[in-house]
Amino acid sequence: MIVSALLTSVGINLGLFLFFLLLYSVLRKQPPNLKIYSPRLLADGTLRPEGGFGIDSLLPSPGWVRAAWAVPEDDLLASGGLDAVVFVRIFVFCLKVFSVAGAIGIFILLPINYLGDQLRDIDFSDIPNKSIDLFSISNVKDGSNRLWIHFSAAYLITGVVCYLLYSEYKFIYHKRLAVFHTSGPQPQHFTILVRGIPIQNRSSVNDTVHRFFMEYHPSTYLSHIVVHRTSKLRSLITDAENLYGRLTHLKSRSHTSENLHRGGFLGSGRKVDVVGDYAKKLENVEENLRIEQPGGSQAGEEVPAAFVSFKSRYGAAAAAHIQQSINPTLWVTEQAPEPHDIYWPFFSTSFMQRWIFKLVVLVASVALIIVFLLPVTFVQGLTNLEQLEALFPFLKGILTTAVVSQVITGYLPSLILLLLLSVVPPIMKLFSSMQGFIANSEIEKSACTKMLWFTIWNIFFANVLTGSVASQLQIFLDPKNIPSVLAVVVPAQASFFIAYVVTSWTSLSVELTRLVPLIGDWIGRHCLRCTDDGVHVPSIPYHSEIPRILLVELLGLVYFLLAPLILPFLLVFFFIGYIIYRNQLLNVYLPKYETGGKFWPIVHNSTIFSLLLMQAIAIGIFGLKKLPLASGLILPLPVLTLLYNEYCRKRFLPIFVAYPAESLIKKDREEQNDPEMNVFFNKLVTAYLEPALMPVSRPLNTNDHTTPLLSSA
Amino acid sequence: MIVSALLTSVGINLGLFLFFLLLYSVLRKQPPNLKIYSPRLLADGTLRPEGGFGIDSLLPSPGWVRAAWAVPEDDLLASGGLDAVVFVRIFVFCLKVFSVAGAIGIFILLPINYLGDQLRDIDFSDIPNKSIDLFSISNVKDGSNRLWIHFSAAYLITGVVCYLLYSEYKFIYHKRLAVFHTSGPQPQHFTILVRGIPIQNRSSVNDTVHRFFMEYHPSTYLSHIVVHRTSKLRSLITDAENLYGRLTHLKSRSHTSENLHRGGFLGSGRKVDVVGDYAKKLENVEENLRIEQPGGSQAGEEVPAAFVSFKSRYGAAAAAHIQQSINPTLWVTEQAPEPHDIYWPFFSTSFMQRWIFKLVVLVASVALIIVFLLPVTFVQGLTNLEQLEALFPFLKGILTTAVVSQVITGYLPSLILLLLLSVVPPIMKLFSSMQGFIANSEIEKSACTKMLWFTIWNIFFANVLTGSVASQLQIFLDPKNIPSVLAVVVPAQASFFIAYVVTSWTSLSVELTRLVPLIGDWIGRHCLRCTDDGVHVPSIPYHSEIPRILLVELLGLVYFLLAPLILPFLLVFFFIGYIIYRNQLLNVYLPKYETGGKFWPIVHNSTIFSLLLMQAIAIGIFGLKKLPLASGLILPLPVLTLLYNEYCRKRFLPIFVAYPAESLIKKDREEQNDPEMNVFFNKLVTAYLEPALMPVSRPLNTNDHTTPLLSSA
Repeated sequence: MIVSALLTSVGINLGLFLFFLLLYSVLRKQPPNLKIYSPRLLADGTLRPEGGFGIDSLLPSPGWVRAAWAVPEDDLLASGGLDAVVFVRIFVFCLKVFSVAGAIGIFILLPINYLGDQLRDIDFSDIPNKSIDLFSISNVKDGSNRLWIHFSAAYLITGVVCYLLYSEYKFIYHKRLAVFHTSGPQPQHFTILVRGIPIQNRSSVNDTVHRFFMEYHPSTYLSHIVVHRTSKLRSLITDAENLYGRLTHLKSRSHTSENLHRGGFLGSGRKVDVVGDYAKKLENVEENLRIEQPGGSQAGEEVPAAFVSFKSRYGAAAAAHIQQSINPTLWVTEQAPEPHDIYWPFFSTSFMQRWIFKLVVLVASVALIIVFLLPVTFVQGLTNLEQLEALFPFLKGILTTAVVSQVITGYLPSLILLLLLSVVPPIMKLFSSMQGFIANSEIEKSACTKMLWFTIWNIFFANVLTGSVASQLQIFLDPKNIPSVLAVVVPAQASFFIAYVVTSWTSLSVELTRLVPLIGDWIGRHCLRCTDDGVHVPSIPYHSEIPRILLVELLGLVYFLLAPLILPFLLVFFFIGYIIYRNQLLNVYLPKYETGGKFWPIVHNSTIFSLLLMQAIAIGIFGLKKLPLASGLILPLPVLTLLYNEYCRKRFLPIFVAYPAESLIKKDREEQNDPEMNVFFNKLVTAYLEPALMPVSRPLNTNDHTTPLLSSA
Repeated sequence: MIVSALLTSVGINLGLFLFFLLLYSVLRKQPPNLKIYSPRLLADGTLRPEGGFGIDSLLPSPGWVRAAWAVPEDDLLASGGLDAVVFVRIFVFCLKVFSVAGAIGIFILLPINYLGDQLRDIDFSDIPNKSIDLFSISNVKDGSNRLWIHFSAAYLITGVVCYLLYSEYKFIYHKRLAVFHTSGPQPQHFTILVRGIPIQNRSSVNDTVHRFFMEYHPSTYLSHIVVHRTSKLRSLITDAENLYGRLTHLKSRSHTSENLHRGGFLGSGRKVDVVGDYAKKLENVEENLRIEQPGGSQAGEEVPAAFVSFKSRYGAAAAAHIQQSINPTLWVTEQAPEPHDIYWPFFSTSFMQRWIFKLVVLVASVALIIVFLLPVTFVQGLTNLEQLEALFPFLKGILTTAVVSQVITGYLPSLILLLLLSVVPPIMKLFSSMQGFIANSEIEKSACTKMLWFTIWNIFFANVLTGSVASQLQIFLDPKNIPSVLAVVVPAQASFFIAYVVTSWTSLSVELTRLVPLIGDWIGRHCLRCTDDGVHVPSIPYHSEIPRILLVELLGLVYFLLAPLILPFLLVFFFIGYIIYRNQLLNVYLPKYETGGKFWPIVHNSTIFSLLLMQAIAIGIFGLKKLPLASGLILPLPVLTLLYNEYCRKRFLPIFVAYPAESLIKKDREEQNDPEMNVFFNKLVTAYLEPALMPVSRPLNTNDHTTPLLSSA
C-alpha cells in the first residue's frame, strides 16, 4: 500500500470516528434515546426519563468523556463486577505495553529502518507506491549491524511484556481474592453440582441423592434440588410471559401512551380487539401449564443431576474436589455456578453424551475456522488490484480512478472483514452451549477461546498466507520452516493490518453509538409502532469483544519489530477503547454473571502466544536478513517465554480455578455466629430451583392476583 | 536374514535357555545358593539353610515350574503385593492377546503371504537369502484382494486388544480397591506431605506448621513431623552401621566360621588387629555423631517441609486435594508415600528448584535417548555384513566363514544390544531421583516411563530407521509421511526383531539363574574371602523389566500384520516369562514398596501406542501395496483407538491417582470405634520420623548396650 492510500484510510476513519463521536454526544441527551445509551441507569432508577428539551441538548459536549475517564476503578468494580475491571485492564495493559513499544519503535527502530538503504539501492521506478516499506525492517541492509538493535528490541519488549503481564496477573489475582473476601455469603460457594447419579432399584433421584450425602457427608450436607427436564414447561412459560408482557403493555398504553409518544395515526381503534385476543391466548397457555404441572416438585422428568448445598464453603469445596464414587463417571461433582447464571436447556445430557458432544463441537469449530477462509480469501483479493481486475474485467474502468482504487484497497477489505466477523460469535456461542457447560459464563468463556483461535487464524494467518486452505495448512505440517515462511509473508501485509487497526477505530465508535439497537429502536418506534417501554439492559458480549482486542494486541507485538509505523495507530485504538468501554460499562451494560476475573488467563495466554509468534518471525527475519548469529541467539527467547508462562500457570492460575482452603475457612469462620446466616441458608434451599418450577411472583392472568405456578419444592 | 541364520539363532538361544534351566534346577538345591535363589524365604524364616547334600540335589528337577505355575494369584498378592500381580498380569494379558493374534497370524495371514507371488515373480537369484520375506506381507501381490484379509485382521486385533485392555484395567481397578478395603490402617492414608512452608518472623517451621493446621483443620489434624536436612548425619550413621556390621561379623566369625565354611588359609592370625582397628574407627564415628546431634528433634537444619498426620483418611485426603494457601506455591500438599518408601536425599529442594531440576532432567533424558543411538547404529551395522566389511577390512577373511557370519548377523547384535541396555536403567533412575520425587516408588515409576521411551526409540526406531540421528528426527518433523516411511522400513527389519525376541529367551533364563549375583557371591566366597552371611533380599526393578516386556509386546503388535512368523516366538517368550517371573516373585524378590498397581496405566498407554503404530504402518503398507481404499478405511481405526483410550482414562485412571471419598469414608467409619486405632495413632505420630533421627534399637558401640542416637521427637 502506498502512503497516500494509508492516509485516505486514516482520513475516512478519523472522519467517521469524529462524526460518530459528535452524533453520540448529541443523541445521548435526547430523552427517547436514554434507554439506548443509559439503559442500566434507567433500570437502576439512578436516571429518570425527563421530557425536557432545549438548545443545550442539541449541542455536543464532551462531559461524558471526562466522566468515563474520572470514574475510579472501585466504582467500576461495584457496578460491573470484576469481569468489567478485567476487561478494562486489557486496555490498560495494552496501553502500557505499547507506550514502551511505541517509544522504542518510533524513536529508535523507525529512524534506523528509514536510514537503511536496502530498498533505495534498487532502482525503484515506483517508490511512492512502496513507500510504507521504507519504514519497515525490509529497508535495513542485509547483514547490517544495525539489525542488532532490532535484536535487542526483541529481548527488551519480551522482558517488558512479561513484567507487565506478571504485575497485571498479580493485580487481578489479588483483586479476585479481595472480592471473595469482602463478598457476603453467596449460594454458589455453598453448592456443588452433582451429575451422573446412579439410580438403583427404581428409587427416585431425590432419595438417592439424599441417602448418598447423608451417608458420606452427614456433618456438612444441607439440602439438595434435583434437576428436572422442563423444556416443554419452559417454552409454555416463555409464551405466557410474552403474552402477559404485551397485554400489560397494551393496557397501560391506553392510559399513558398519549403523554409520552406522539403520532399514532393507525391502530388505536383496534386496540380493544387485540387486548381480547391476547387475553384469550394467555388463558389457553395457562390451561396447558396447569396440565403440565401436577404440582410440587414432581413436575417434569427427573434428570440424574442435582444441586447439593452444604453448610459451609469448605464442606462444598471438599465434596467438589474429591472424587466421590469408586466409579469416576458417577457422582461427578463440580462447583455450582451462580443461580441466575445457569444455562438450563442442555442440562440433561449424560457423561457419555457430553463427552461426544464435546468432540463433535471441537470438530465443528475447527471446520468452521477453516471453511471461513473462503470469504476471507476473497476479501484479501481486494487489496490486490491486479487480481481483482483479472476476476472482474468489467471493473477495469472504475478501478483506474485513483480515489476508488484507494478506497477499495485501503478501506473496503477491512470493512467487509469486520462485517463478516460479526456473524461468527453467535455461532461459536451456540457451539459452546452444545458442549454441555452448565453456566452462561462458562459458555461465553469457551466461546471466547474459540473466537480467539478463529480470529487469529482467519484474520491474521489467512491474510498473511496466500493460497488455498490446503497449502496454508501445509506450512504448519512442516514446523521447521514456519519462521522463514512467516518472515517472508508477514511483513508484506503490514499495510493491510495498519488499515485494519485504523478501521477498528470506527468499529469502536459504532460500539459507542450502538447503531444497531438505535436504528432498531427507531424503526420500531416510527414504522412498526410497537413501542416497548420496557428497558432492555444488555450484557457485554465478552466472547466477541475480547478476541477483537487481543487480535489488535497480537498485531502490535508482531509488527513492533517489522513495521513500527503501526504503533501510533494502535495506541490511539487502545486509548479510544479505554474511554469508550468504560463509558459503556458504566451506562449501558449490566453484568449477567460474575466469573471473578476468569477471563484474564485467556488474555494472558493470548499475549504469550503473540510473543512467541513475534519471536518466531524474528528468528526468520534475521535469517532472511543474513544475520544467522542473531537468528540463533533469539532461540533462547521462546524457551524463556514458555518457562515464564509455566511459572505464571503455577503461581496464579490455581486461584482462578478454585478458592483455596485458607480463604474458604476464614470466610466460614467469620460468619459462624452471624444470625443472618440462617436467613441465607433458608434461601439457599431453594436458590437452585429451576426458574420454570419457581413460584411466579407477578400475576400471570389478567385478574391481577398472584398465582404461584408451583409451590416451592 | 535367511532362514538358516534364523534357525541358528533359535538353536543357540534354545540351547542356552535349556542349559540355564538345567543349571538353575541343580544350583537352586545347593545350600550355599539358597541366599541367591530363595533369599526372601530365608529372610522370612520359611526356609532354613540345611547342610544336607546328596545325589538328589545334583539331579535337575522341574518341581519349581509346577510350583510357580500352581500358586494362586491371591498368594502372589499376599507375598508380592498388587504390583507383583500387575507385573504378572502383563504376561497374562500378552499371552491372551498373542494367542488370538498368533491363531490369526499363523493360520490365516501366514498361508496367504506364502501363497502370494509378488517376490517369486521377480527373478531372485538369492531367494534362500531372502526367504523369511516369503512369509511376510511383502510377498502378497500388489493390489491383491487378499490384502482385505489383512485389513480385517487389523480391525479385529484392535478390537481384541481393546477388549482385553478394558477387562484387564477393570480387573486391576477392582483389585486395587479391594486391597485398599481389606487393608488395615496405614500411615500413608492418614498423612500428607506439605512443602513450601513459609516462615515468618523467625519462628520455626515446627511452630508454623502447628499453627497453620490448628487454625484451618482443628477437627482433623493429629500431629506433624518436620523434615530435617540430615545428609551429614545420614552418612555418619551409614559409616557407623557398616563398621558395626563388620565388627559383629568379625567377632561372630571367630566362633562360627569354622562350622560353616571350609578353607581360610589366610588372615586368621590378623583377626585380632582388624577387630581393634574397626572398634577404634567406630568410636571416632560415634564421637562425630554425638557432636552432630545436640539432642532432641533439633538435629539437622529444618527444611520447610513436613509430614502432617490427620485423624481420618478423609481429613487427610481433603487437605491433600484442596489447595491450602492463597499462594499456590506455598503449602503445597500431596498424599504421603509409605514411610519406608521415602527417598530422603533429595528432599530439601524448594518449589522453584524442583521445577528447574525437572526441566533439566527432561532435557538430559531426551539427550541420552538421542545420543544412545550412536552405539545402536553400530550394532545395527553388524546385521549388515557388507557394511561391516567396509568398516573393518581385516575381518573380511573371518566373515566369509558361514558359521561366523551367521553368528554375527543372527546373534551378536541382539546380545550387544541387551548388554548395552543394562547400563541405562540405573542412569534413568538417577535422573528420576533428581526430579524431586519423594518416594522410591515414584522414582521407579518415572524411570519406567523414561526407559519405555528410551527402549522404543533406541531399539525399535533406531533399528528400523537407518541413517544419522538428524535424518531420523527429520522423519518425525514431517508427520504426513510417517506411515509411508515406516511401511517401507519396518518390514525390512522383521528378521532382526525375530532374532531379538529369540535372544530375549536367554535373557529371561539369565534372570532365572541370577548369574550376576551368583558369580558375585561365588567370587566373594572363594576369592575375596569376605563371607557376608547377611541375606540380601533384592526388590524387583520394575523400571527396567516392564519396558523390556512392553517392547516385545510392541514388536508383536507391529509385526502381526507384516510378518506373522514372529508370533510363535513371542508366545514362547511370554510363556517362559510368566513361569520364571512368578517363580522369582515368590522366592527371590521382596517388594520394597506398594504402589497399588500404579504401573498398570503405563502398560495401558504403551499398548495403545503400539496399536497406533501398528495402524500407522498399516495405512502406509496398504498405500504401498496399491490398495489406497484399504489405506483410507484404516483411518477411523486410530481415531477410535484414541477415543477408547480417552474413555479408559476417564473411567479408570482417577482411581489410580487417589482413592474416592466413598472408600475413604467407609474405611474411616469401620474403624471409628476400634480400640486398636489408638495404638495406631500413637505409632503414626512418629511413623514419618527420618531414619537418621530415629532411635537406634541395636547397640552401636562394642559395649553391647542400647544407645538411642536420639530421643524420639
